[in-house]
Amino acid sequence: MSADKQPVALTAGIIRTDRTMADGRTIRYYDDGVVARTAVDQRQVDAMPGIGDLRLDPLVNEWVIVASHRQGRAFLPPKELCPLCPTHDNLASEIPESSYQVAVFDNRTPALTAPHEDFRHGVITGFDTPDVPAAGKCEVVCYTDQHEGSFGELSLHQIRMVMEAWRDRTRELSTLSYIEQVFPFENRGEEVGVTLNHPHGQIYAYSFITPRTQNMLDVAEAHLKKTGRVLMDDIVARELKDELRIVAQNSEWVAYVPYASRYPFEIHVAPRRSVPDLAELDDVAADAFPEIAKEVMQRLDGVFGIQMAYIGAWHQAPVRTGRDALRAHWQITSVRRAPGKLKYLAGSESAMNAFVMDMKPEQSAGQLRDVKLK
Amino acid sequence: MSADKQPVALTAGIIRTDRTMADGRTIRYYDDGVVARTAVDQRQVDAMPGIGDLRLDPLVNEWVIVASHRQGRAFLPPKELCPLCPTHDNLASEIPESSYQVAVFDNRTPALTAPHEDFRHGVITGFDTPDVPAAGKCEVVCYTDQHEGSFGELSLHQIRMVMEAWRDRTRELSTLSYIEQVFPFENRGEEVGVTLNHPHGQIYAYSFITPRTQNMLDVAEAHLKKTGRVLMDDIVARELKDELRIVAQNSEWVAYVPYASRYPFEIHVAPRRSVPDLAELDDVAADAFPEIAKEVMQRLDGVFGIQMAYIGAWHQAPVRTGRDALRAHWQITSVRRAPGKLKYLAGSESAMNAFVMDMKPEQSAGQLRDVKLK
Repeated sequence: MSADKQPVALTAGIIRTDRTMADGRTIRYYDDGVVARTAVDQRQVDAMPGIGDLRLDPLVNEWVIVASHRQGRAFLPPKELCPLCPTHDNLASEIPESSYQVAVFDNRTPALTAPHEDFRHGVITGFDTPDVPAAGKCEVVCYTDQHEGSFGELSLHQIRMVMEAWRDRTRELSTLSYIEQVFPFENRGEEVGVTLNHPHGQIYAYSFITPRTQNMLDVAEAHLKKTGRVLMDDIVARELKDELRIVAQNSEWVAYVPYASRYPFEIHVAPRRSVPDLAELDDVAADAFPEIAKEVMQRLDGVFGIQMAYIGAWHQAPVRTGRDALRAHWQITSVRRAPGKLKYLAGSESAMNAFVMDMKPEQSAGQLRDVKLK
Repeated sequence: MSADKQPVALTAGIIRTDRTMADGRTIRYYDDGVVARTAVDQRQVDAMPGIGDLRLDPLVNEWVIVASHRQGRAFLPPKELCPLCPTHDNLASEIPESSYQVAVFDNRTPALTAPHEDFRHGVITGFDTPDVPAAGKCEVVCYTDQHEGSFGELSLHQIRMVMEAWRDRTRELSTLSYIEQVFPFENRGEEVGVTLNHPHGQIYAYSFITPRTQNMLDVAEAHLKKTGRVLMDDIVARELKDELRIVAQNSEWVAYVPYASRYPFEIHVAPRRSVPDLAELDDVAADAFPEIAKEVMQRLDGVFGIQMAYIGAWHQAPVRTGRDALRAHWQITSVRRAPGKLKYLAGSESAMNAFVMDMKPEQSAGQLRDVKLK
């Protein structure tokens, strides 16, 4: 069941090489040209955790992932024990090679796990819908082999390679029969519970459509039916027309604080041409992404002159449905509202999903625009 | 426009006396029998903040409250400046009296504000639905005049008085033409952003149905139509039958960790007889509430032997709709999963509303049951 394969050429001269880890997981190296990736994972094999459950919350018909096997995962290890650094003399990390460019490996303690062959999707039958296995895939996307730094500090070329990894993973994960939605994201900062400081993101590939995406899909399909138009196209057009909340733009991308943002600093970055997901993004748009991504990140960190904690989330259409109605975009939300002050999800947000925004989105966009770029 | 009125007798011998504050806001004292409440608010009048806006998030058709006038609110003042302590020689607080039992006053920096007479509800007309005023009411519920302590440490009688205040406020706020939903809640602990340590809760009365309640309503109405039964009745019956997740019960109330809980420690407390909201709770159930409330709070704090941060949220049916389908219950969620470890809402929870639960609900219920009560 080895994953070792011949290297595959992607776009922009990027080569992917798959290798099998000691416990059978796969690691994928994304390199700028052909680089020999032959290092062998020498670690002892630990037992892999089992698969969790999906339980239906009958109050709202939403699946909850019960992953009780994950309690023991790594929690802010010291730098010299970082599992995302390359392997070196004193450390056998998750990445067997002694250096890498971008690497994506299967998460060792995944919330979602590849199921057995006889897996069937959960079907909501009512308030006592039975559990189903928490099928899916969880992957870790290492942005660089340098432990210090952040996504926004990567070179333009390095961000382009990360984008290629996102596109490639979206494309491949979409072919798996048990996957309904692919979600690349990044949590940055201890304020949002980050347990490893090494610059990295994650991919969750779900075997169900997530509640938020289902809501977006319902609204977008109703809009499409009523107007014949893609909702996000109309939203982006309004943001461009209003101008007030635009944060950055280039020939291929628009970044704005949305009209009804929920967080003090929330930025949506949308490609100018509608695509349902990153797999369908064309090379021109992929090539223009690093520039706007770096600018947005610099503006975010520049507002208070500190590294902002954020969640960077790629909204994508589900794999098998709604692909004519939903449009990919990158949503960055920060919980910081001032130096030393966080936006907490308290009663109204947490229990009622009714958000209270303490500043006007136009003010937030103005502060982001006012940042002087280096 | 004075709110000063003759005292009104509620149930359980509790008397409510309304007084007008210096800036025109109302404070309501709930007392065990007749107590003269004549103290005058001697403070200088500050300008009251204006009303915020409701903006529709067009991606999901949900209202967001934009309350940019609230940035300057009190943030963890030292105990001697606590605005929820009674007024004393060195402090003119929000409560003019020198002692009180339970008091409820209009929030000085409300997210939701009583609108002008010509107010009209926002109607969703599509992706560019215009702003409407953020109409509603925000109130502060002071549980005791003692600065130290917590809801769970109140006497049984004091909790009964808080319950009477919740019932009374739900009843009265429901009569206002611009109110659609009444939400009593408590945020406890700096981990959930509490800015005042004095034991207190809040009430948000919304001029719209919150997104979470709308979801619950849609599911409950479909269940009622399909089965002829109230969804929460079936849920409580399943929890009683399964037994595994029951945390506490008495003659009138059942407390359980729900089958598909989202947080490591999440407890739902439901009355055995269905009622849409606290205004319709009968006196027998109200009288039996303090006992189970204290037990649940003791178990929650007992799990790790520390004061647990939590959000305590009263789910109630909307004022004008769904009253045959939704059933009131009290939801307590804690973000703590172990001493020194919090459950963060990261990418999957925050952006996709797909919750990953790191322990089985049955394990959580077992830990809560194992706590030895004092």
